[in-house]
Amino acid sequence: MVAKILGNLSHGLVFIISAPAGTGKTTLVRMLINEFDCVAESVSCTTRKIRPGEIPGRDYFFLTDEEFEAKKSSGDFLEFAEVFGHQYGTSREYVTKSQATGKHVFLVIDTQGAMRLKKENFPAVYVFLSPPSLEELKQRLCKRQTECPETIEKRLSWAEQEMEMARHYDYHIVNDNLDNAYTILRSIVIAEEHRVRP
Amino acid sequence: MVAKILGNLSHGLVFIISAPAGTGKTTLVRMLINEFDCVAESVSCTTRKIRPGEIPGRDYFFLTDEEFEAKKSSGDFLEFAEVFGHQYGTSREYVTKSQATGKHVFLVIDTQGAMRLKKENFPAVYVFLSPPSLEELKQRLCKRQTECPETIEKRLSWAEQEMEMARHYDYHIVNDNLDNAYTILRSIVIAEEHRVRP
Repeated sequence: MVAKILGNLSHGLVFIISAPAGTGKTTLVRMLINEFDCVAESVSCTTRKIRPGEIPGRDYFFLTDEEFEAKKSSGDFLEFAEVFGHQYGTSREYVTKSQATGKHVFLVIDTQGAMRLKKENFPAVYVFLSPPSLEELKQRLCKRQTECPETIEKRLSWAEQEMEMARHYDYHIVNDNLDNAYTILRSIVIAEEHRVRP
Repeated sequence: MVAKILGNLSHGLVFIISAPAGTGKTTLVRMLINEFDCVAESVSCTTRKIRPGEIPGRDYFFLTDEEFEAKKSSGDFLEFAEVFGHQYGTSREYVTKSQATGKHVFLVIDTQGAMRLKKENFPAVYVFLSPPSLEELKQRLCKRQTECPETIEKRLSWAEQEMEMARHYDYHIVNDNLDNAYTILRSIVIAEEHRVRP
């Protein structure tokens, strides 16, 4: 039987992807999941309110502050971070179980969470996605119309800080064209599956 | 201007590819060169006789034993190896000059040469390509009809030893299907161009 270009591992890899909001990370990861059965996105837990169109268990597990704190204290989270007053966390069990089925698991997390995992030498492929420029990012966020101007300004200032972190990642993709960014992300996943690991 | 998926570096990378004879390394590297202007193959020097269809300066620089020894003693070779009684060597200047034009340079060299460079920490991406099985390799070599049965036997026994070395490379591709092997090799090059380097 001929090996596939992706999905030949009995134990999947973890890919950590960080990007300022509005850079296209969600779109790119969804494209990858649509193309490859062996790619899955980790569903995070969050205390933020559900947005129109989001589905609990698919987009996030929506928890109350109390539920979140309970999981946090029992060490259930691989990483957790507070962003704009809301908690986000990745269930350790969820990731490990997905990997054990041979799936590559994508964690879409912010730079705080990613860098904490990297410091702990958590075995993962760290990918940073950036917008072509902050100006372009501002336009995208305004077009999205999900946030008020103040939140957009806060996001932009945070984006600037996040972009400083790109150099600590394994890979850096500039999303100035969605098709190209997808080709690059797809290539990283295919390459990493064929990397020789000790 | 939108960045390309490949060819954005001012200084290209070196890719070292090793594979038992008949695995398809030449075909794969040619496919890459045809698709991307920014990929080039290093032209090696050799003391072996020219084969039908080969062009000096494109396939190899064909040198006499004396010429080869002279270059060797003056340190002109990045690596050199003897294979089946013939000398092969890669010109250091040729590689550096190609990289300086932004090209990714492929060195198709045997495991001896590759491992010597790796030991010296020569900065390159090390890719090992293997046939699906030795049986399959034997059939391919017989079909090619460029070698006598004794040479084929020698090549097979050497292939077996070479395949032991795969674990020392950065990437391992099994060529059981040319299109898939190409997608994987192409992905490795695209991914590596987007790797964050210190």
